[in-house]
Amino acid sequence: MSRPDGRVADQLRHVRIQRGWLDHAEGSVLVEFGGTRVLCAASVQDSVPRWRRDTGLGWLTAEYAMLPRATNTRNDREAVKGKLGGRTQEISRLIGRSLRACVDFKALGQNTITLDCDVLQADGGTRTAAITGAYVALADAVTWMRDKRLTKGDPLITSVCAVSVGVIDGQPRLDLCYEEDVRADTDMNVVCTGDGRLIEVQGTAEGQPFSRAELNSLLDLAELGCVDLTMMQKEALAR
Amino acid sequence: MSRPDGRVADQLRHVRIQRGWLDHAEGSVLVEFGGTRVLCAASVQDSVPRWRRDTGLGWLTAEYAMLPRATNTRNDREAVKGKLGGRTQEISRLIGRSLRACVDFKALGQNTITLDCDVLQADGGTRTAAITGAYVALADAVTWMRDKRLTKGDPLITSVCAVSVGVIDGQPRLDLCYEEDVRADTDMNVVCTGDGRLIEVQGTAEGQPFSRAELNSLLDLAELGCVDLTMMQKEALAR
Amino acid sequence: MSRPDGRVADQLRHVRIQRGWLDHAEGSVLVEFGGTRVLCAASVQDSVPRWRRDTGLGWLTAEYAMLPRATNTRNDREAVKGKLGGRTQEISRLIGRSLRACVDFKALGQNTITLDCDVLQADGGTRTAAITGAYVALADAVTWMRDKRLTKGDPLITSVCAVSVGVIDGQPRLDLCYEEDVRADTDMNVVCTGDGRLIEVQGTAEGQPFSRAELNSLLDLAELGCVDLTMMQKEALAR
Amino acid sequence: MSRPDGRVADQLRHVRIQRGWLDHAEGSVLVEFGGTRVLCAASVQDSVPRWRRDTGLGWLTAEYAMLPRATNTRNDREAVKGKLGGRTQEISRLIGRSLRACVDFKALGQNTITLDCDVLQADGGTRTAAITGAYVALADAVTWMRDKRLTKGDPLITSVCAVSVGVIDGQPRLDLCYEEDVRADTDMNVVCTGDGRLIEVQGTAEGQPFSRAELNSLLDLAELGCVDLTMMQKEALAR
Amino acid sequence: MSRPDGRVADQLRHVRIQRGWLDHAEGSVLVEFGGTRVLCAASVQDSVPRWRRDTGLGWLTAEYAMLPRATNTRNDREAVKGKLGGRTQEISRLIGRSLRACVDFKALGQNTITLDCDVLQADGGTRTAAITGAYVALADAVTWMRDKRLTKGDPLITSVCAVSVGVIDGQPRLDLCYEEDVRADTDMNVVCTGDGRLIEVQGTAEGQPFSRAELNSLLDLAELGCVDLTMMQKEALAR
Amino acid sequence: MSRPDGRVADQLRHVRIQRGWLDHAEGSVLVEFGGTRVLCAASVQDSVPRWRRDTGLGWLTAEYAMLPRATNTRNDREAVKGKLGGRTQEISRLIGRSLRACVDFKALGQNTITLDCDVLQADGGTRTAAITGAYVALADAVTWMRDKRLTKGDPLITSVCAVSVGVIDGQPRLDLCYEEDVRADTDMNVVCTGDGRLIEVQGTAEGQPFSRAELNSLLDLAELGCVDLTMMQKEALAR
Repeated sequence: MSRPDGRVADQLRHVRIQRGWLDHAEGSVLVEFGGTRVLCAASVQDSVPRWRRDTGLGWLTAEYAMLPRATNTRNDREAVKGKLGGRTQEISRLIGRSLRACVDFKALGQNTITLDCDVLQADGGTRTAAITGAYVALADAVTWMRDKRLTKGDPLITSVCAVSVGVIDGQPRLDLCYEEDVRADTDMNVVCTGDGRLIEVQGTAEGQPFSRAELNSLLDLAELGCVDLTMMQKEALAR
Repeated sequence: MSRPDGRVADQLRHVRIQRGWLDHAEGSVLVEFGGTRVLCAASVQDSVPRWRRDTGLGWLTAEYAMLPRATNTRNDREAVKGKLGGRTQEISRLIGRSLRACVDFKALGQNTITLDCDVLQADGGTRTAAITGAYVALADAVTWMRDKRLTKGDPLITSVCAVSVGVIDGQPRLDLCYEEDVRADTDMNVVCTGDGRLIEVQGTAEGQPFSRAELNSLLDLAELGCVDLTMMQKEALAR
Repeated sequence: MSRPDGRVADQLRHVRIQRGWLDHAEGSVLVEFGGTRVLCAASVQDSVPRWRRDTGLGWLTAEYAMLPRATNTRNDREAVKGKLGGRTQEISRLIGRSLRACVDFKALGQNTITLDCDVLQADGGTRTAAITGAYVALADAVTWMRDKRLTKGDPLITSVCAVSVGVIDGQPRLDLCYEEDVRADTDMNVVCTGDGRLIEVQGTAEGQPFSRAELNSLLDLAELGCVDLTMMQKEALAR
Repeated sequence: MSRPDGRVADQLRHVRIQRGWLDHAEGSVLVEFGGTRVLCAASVQDSVPRWRRDTGLGWLTAEYAMLPRATNTRNDREAVKGKLGGRTQEISRLIGRSLRACVDFKALGQNTITLDCDVLQADGGTRTAAITGAYVALADAVTWMRDKRLTKGDPLITSVCAVSVGVIDGQPRLDLCYEEDVRADTDMNVVCTGDGRLIEVQGTAEGQPFSRAELNSLLDLAELGCVDLTMMQKEALAR
Repeated sequence: MSRPDGRVADQLRHVRIQRGWLDHAEGSVLVEFGGTRVLCAASVQDSVPRWRRDTGLGWLTAEYAMLPRATNTRNDREAVKGKLGGRTQEISRLIGRSLRACVDFKALGQNTITLDCDVLQADGGTRTAAITGAYVALADAVTWMRDKRLTKGDPLITSVCAVSVGVIDGQPRLDLCYEEDVRADTDMNVVCTGDGRLIEVQGTAEGQPFSRAELNSLLDLAELGCVDLTMMQKEALAR
Repeated sequence: MSRPDGRVADQLRHVRIQRGWLDHAEGSVLVEFGGTRVLCAASVQDSVPRWRRDTGLGWLTAEYAMLPRATNTRNDREAVKGKLGGRTQEISRLIGRSLRACVDFKALGQNTITLDCDVLQADGGTRTAAITGAYVALADAVTWMRDKRLTKGDPLITSVCAVSVGVIDGQPRLDLCYEEDVRADTDMNVVCTGDGRLIEVQGTAEGQPFSRAELNSLLDLAELGCVDLTMMQKEALAR
């Protein structure tokens, strides 16, 4: 059972992390997982939402969106339709939640970081690429803040990355491309810290319900992938 | 470490499933998980969405909502604000996905079942109560359809129920009430079939990231709860 | 000319007023007029709208809504459509106006009471049931406030109830059920105080225009009904 | 107790009905009740709404709106706010309902008449001026249709007009201007046919609840006013 | 090549400027360019938008809209559709920009003038009629402010008017009516100051692209028209 | 008077046109005018809008948008706000109008081309870069169509490009960057065909009104720029 792009089951697609892709953003990354290409921009604002005021704590939020022609056939713009789709909001919430898990909000001070993850091209795994790239953009924005002495200590507790796994034709596979994603029986997104603990596990039976054994083999695969992605994030940040 | 309502760690709250709570709906259930009270109504419509036409297959969709004063303090109505919140859409999508997993759409014929899950009172676990109750409403609607000879064979492949689990003060607990939910370090919702396979697993680190061992102990607990809930669904449908 | 449910022309449907149906709300009532079932929740907030500030006066507002499957066939959610229908807003305004007529806003202090009236099941007369039930929920919320010493004197000047009347086949009838409502030539909603004065009279010719004589016979009937409803409210509050 | 503009209690304001104010509309009227000025346009369309198709019957609908500076201080546009206010929808519904009462939809054929009532200047009684003017615009549109042989018999059963009445300082008064309207204890809008029967009665206690006796004296006054308005409509249509 | 209404190529339509058409507005004008009829209302507010605060400068904004039956066939209301069309916003922005060009915001003080331009009837050139009329309404509002001593010196630097020009059948023409507008190859709107300088030039090839020579001949024509319109504005303000 | 980036007055910024930047779109271009970076995607759909049906003619439409962090400080997403801003719609309309000027809709057949122009980074002149890039994406989409034999003859009559010009400190300059744009007294966008004719001229006095002489010198400059841009488009398409 070969994969559409010739990979073996536990192999990531070609991952590319370009830092500093935008001139204005405090941190920015163009991240590619194979044909999936997401532009992640981190914006720093020296205030927090109303409900967070007077706590001394900062905040982090994320917005995910897709360009109309990121996909095989064109999708209508949500701005034109006048409302955000459920999928868009669900992924935005996931990205925000995942990255908040690595931030010490006391050290961040009363600042808000907004992570915009805009999918320029989609080929499966856009949310996991977004989380992986957003972490690097976040790290750059935090460095920018530290240089401006806006932080109190190190706001980054750990690193965060994410990968998708799924069962296709009974075989667990790592980092599904779109063609695999639509055929998967079970689809799982796993968000990990750099030291291998879990932040979010979302497994869904697309076709048949799945067993604990399948769940475990998918998690094994995801952990492997996250070790690799964590290393790539480190390398990118070291450049 | 006792629980706010005196339960032991692997104990469900008092669950009550009242069928036929509405006169008009083809299936309806008022389901209670302790103080959480959700009205589930199944509506049958003899057509399918446009993109599903000419496939011979039926469809199932769900909408989740909360009354403004279901909660401790009043929330503004989404209809008044003019848009659905991300949480509402995320849960609606989860309920629909979960219940579609138990339906044979060929047997359902070109009909659509809409499951409205309206939270009348919220005390934690509204989405899991909604899924558990919606299955019973769905079963009644399917019986109604069968009586009208609208189906071709049995559209229900299995039963579906759901339960929340979480880690509080280092202890895994089953079926969190609101007070526990806000204190949980890890929060997980598990959707199971009646024969114990998994449909959806959503685990989130609210505080500290979690380990595979913690994940496993939570899944063990959830499986126990789902066995009980499946039995209660059967009893309710047998009445 | 018998009525669908066997009542005589000047007879109310079976009315049931259950107080304290919700745990969180300061006042709550599940009110039933026959098959019509409305959940009324009164929420107290210790502030007033901006335009009311610095007047020393409180405020009361109401929101009416219907669950999608309250009716014979399912209606789309207004939250999903993204806007409130005209009928919804019209009834919300009527309920608010009616209940403001019984409140001394000086005695209420700078507090706002919101009355949420959610129709769980509809069988005609939902707005009159909502007003009748909302008054009882309001009375309980005011008692709650008095216990907390949030009021200055008694904020309730009088009680308020409402009933529908209509002409069917030339015969004036009290408290129309849905089947009668759609057949009525003239349809009128009357809101009264506990001492028999009028707060709101809304009469509409659905078929033929009506005469002053018909108007008068409908008002006579409505007054009768309101005397009964006032007594039932008193009994419910005495329990 | 003199009135702000020197009228006696049962006197209408100066009413002016200018037909043919617009070049494009099938019927159009600029109607003035004192300082209140409403532009009524009747548009004929050779189709009916979807739910009305295949019935052989026509339809009539109305839309009421106010220009931002019709009033003493400027109001934000509803188009800019992105939603219709409750008051706007309520009055639109009232105008539509009132004018449908005078139309024979079989005679109208499968056509829709839309009555746009745009308040150019407001000084109380905008909805009653709108109804009174809209009837004349409707009559002209019906004549236009008859000339084009689009009708089957006479679609106009009767004429329709409307007037406001209210109790100010204990005195019932006809056709309130804005200054009186804000001071009224009871406010009533009455819609009549040309032969004196009632189409709609909407009475509201703004301050004190009102008695049946007060209601009756207000209805007497309204009937008087409608006799005058009916005559003015006839004169305008005869010109 | 004669024009539909018998004018020569460089002739304006009949222009009529009626001041004081509304009782409440600080300045108001009903302006007519032939069959085009626009009601312009200037409203003064003693505050400025948030981003303009603490600058000592005033602000001017404009809103353009069209009544549903201003046109040959009825258009749906933007308030009913729940969003402003692109054309409406584009013209509102043009009117605001054009009139801001003649205002000294220091002299205006911390006040905002809103110019509402509502098209009661449309026959081509609604935006140019709106700008021409709005200037006169603005001048009256400024006089009203001066009388109340709300200004510091003269806020009006110059006057502003606008006219449309276009090429029909190869011939440049001034002030197009609707019938000409739809047939024009090139369509241009020109906004001028009273002393003949340009504020805005918007030329669009509707059919064939145009040459510099054509552009020049259209500008010549527009300048001529603006000289006339400026004189008419002066005469109207002198009355 | 030197320019911020050292250019002479009649010099374009560095222009870069990368074709085929997206895998899925029928034509796609990443166009850069200095720091301004716009992703243009052309999507082909084998149908036309409803109002265009049964004409045998095709259609072309455009949508312009900006990523939230394309600019110096982050802008809220229009999809989150739930409505399109006036500026966005105005530019979308301009791009569509400009590119329709170069299309033979008979030759295009009953197909629609949608041009999505998403600004990834903004540094002035985003709309002119978008038009210039969109033409190249359009040309590639037309080639794709021709290869699939979807066209009847050549749908491209000419090429289209655009450039901004402005007066800064009394000096006319070509292709303004953001820093110049905000300081310009007069700002003009000019859209030209490949053979030097004008499609759209939009000149706006930002500060002082401008004279015919200034207008002419700006047009001279724009024509120069368009000759260069046309050549670059040809070179890009030849690669």
